[in-house]
Amino acid sequence: MPAVGRTAQDLVEPLLAGDKRALARAISLVENDDPEGWALVREVYPRTGSAAMVGFTGPPGVGKSTLIGALVKHARERGRQVAVLSIDPSSPFTQGALLGDRIRLTEHFLDPGVFIRSMASRGSLGGLSEATLQAALLMDAAGKEEVFLETVGVGQAEVDIIDHADTVVLALMPGSGDSIQALKAGVMEIPDIIVVNKADHPLTDTMIREIRGTLSLAPQGDWRVPIVRTEAARGEGVAELAEKIAEHREHIRAAGTLEQRRRRNLMNEVIGLAAHRLRRRLEESVRDDAEAQSLLDEVVARRIDPATAAARLLEREA
Amino acid sequence: MPAVGRTAQDLVEPLLAGDKRALARAISLVENDDPEGWALVREVYPRTGSAAMVGFTGPPGVGKSTLIGALVKHARERGRQVAVLSIDPSSPFTQGALLGDRIRLTEHFLDPGVFIRSMASRGSLGGLSEATLQAALLMDAAGKEEVFLETVGVGQAEVDIIDHADTVVLALMPGSGDSIQALKAGVMEIPDIIVVNKADHPLTDTMIREIRGTLSLAPQGDWRVPIVRTEAARGEGVAELAEKIAEHREHIRAAGTLEQRRRRNLMNEVIGLAAHRLRRRLEESVRDDAEAQSLLDEVVARRIDPATAAARLLEREA
Repeated sequence: MPAVGRTAQDLVEPLLAGDKRALARAISLVENDDPEGWALVREVYPRTGSAAMVGFTGPPGVGKSTLIGALVKHARERGRQVAVLSIDPSSPFTQGALLGDRIRLTEHFLDPGVFIRSMASRGSLGGLSEATLQAALLMDAAGKEEVFLETVGVGQAEVDIIDHADTVVLALMPGSGDSIQALKAGVMEIPDIIVVNKADHPLTDTMIREIRGTLSLAPQGDWRVPIVRTEAARGEGVAELAEKIAEHREHIRAAGTLEQRRRRNLMNEVIGLAAHRLRRRLEESVRDDAEAQSLLDEVVARRIDPATAAARLLEREA
Repeated sequence: MPAVGRTAQDLVEPLLAGDKRALARAISLVENDDPEGWALVREVYPRTGSAAMVGFTGPPGVGKSTLIGALVKHARERGRQVAVLSIDPSSPFTQGALLGDRIRLTEHFLDPGVFIRSMASRGSLGGLSEATLQAALLMDAAGKEEVFLETVGVGQAEVDIIDHADTVVLALMPGSGDSIQALKAGVMEIPDIIVVNKADHPLTDTMIREIRGTLSLAPQGDWRVPIVRTEAARGEGVAELAEKIAEHREHIRAAGTLEQRRRRNLMNEVIGLAAHRLRRRLEESVRDDAEAQSLLDEVVARRIDPATAAARLLEREA
């Protein structure tokens, strides 16, 4: 176990006191895979677990950022400490989208009770999903009562990230039939709350009927998934959404599901971190090893296929 | 090493003879992580290595599928055997996009010299990137002389997939400034060929100048990246693009770069496969192990942080 160096030690106190700059530095350490960052998380970990983690998913263009902006405003009016973590899995083609989304949150940049951060790095100790949870833990330790996780991308990786949340909100808009298809086909897990944003659209009622139909076919748990209509840009329905989020959290806490979810998420985190370390070790051992290199020569010469070579590599390691 | 079962053995001969149904079944076996699939790849692997693998990347909407459709037509007119492999990394929100893209290739569905396949599964022995190469190897073994790899998504994962190709084509269209930004910022590696599609747009010349400017700042190799103008929907510029692809292939073959690239790609494949197996082993060993479960209890109780738990898990395995 690495000792806590001075950088990390100096950050512990201000971080726990909620200092924004300390939190920003701490997240950068984790993002850059600095050992001090990991030492810091270790140090403050016992002080985590009380933030409500809310994840937002949904197709691009439905207004996730506007929705989150409105929820931040609502929480701030009630004096709550809030953090927003936006994840962009380093797509070379979505830089513009990320910037555009950030602009919708600018009104909160100067509020000391709001912490906003984007992460895109892949170079962390684990994958992006692992780094996300570490950053969320730091926000939690810094006293943020609500942590909103949002992904800019739309791939499976992003869905995995959102899965770290205690409550998952799926945002849709009228006319985006694809997403309901995804629910129907079981490609997506049933979220905890569904928001139909831009609900001034004439097709809103039709869409809500369709969603209800789809949900009625899904296996029923003890939580009835609410469908909330919002017009986030005008603040409409946002209070109701905030209420449903709080209700869901209360529900899973009472039912013991919160504990189960967190256990599952933490197990994925631990295994993800361990698996990445194993991969790194493997890469290092192959790079400098004559035997591994000649195994590779055989693959290049088409004498041994890749899967067989992988199996031999593992036999050797064992 | 698993023995080759009857399913795989029955497929070897028709596959090598170029039978479409055998190829389709073989890819399904690999995609479903069926041991017979892996045995089959092992069996036919010595017969691979001669197909030209061409990868296509670029932002959505630039007409990648139309471009590939036009290249397929061009190759077929010259009597060449062609395969197209489209990858959709299981995004719950892009089902529609995938279908829309497929429609552009329908005119080739009935041609026995063209094999078209979409893959979206994540459940393969390795990740999607590993499964992609396995499927491409099967196409190669089935006598396809040109294999076009295309991704529907836009994330880093997709770029990694395209990296399996010998020749990488970046498709852009006038007015999509973001992509040039990505090149400039070094987020994206310099492709081998750049296509500006929809080149009847008035901003085409401006864009080409911008691209040239960006390329002139990049480290110069011994291959000068050509910029080809196309209007794929009308077939314009497609012959020139096909020629540039052939030229690039000839260039890397002569310079020895083809060998180097394939070595790097195969090494990534081998390590990817090995790493996924390690992860799976780890998951299994944790699931049924009392010691690992009580380590996890400590994480849930916030007494041990996830990274420390991961390190302990690995110490135990070693």
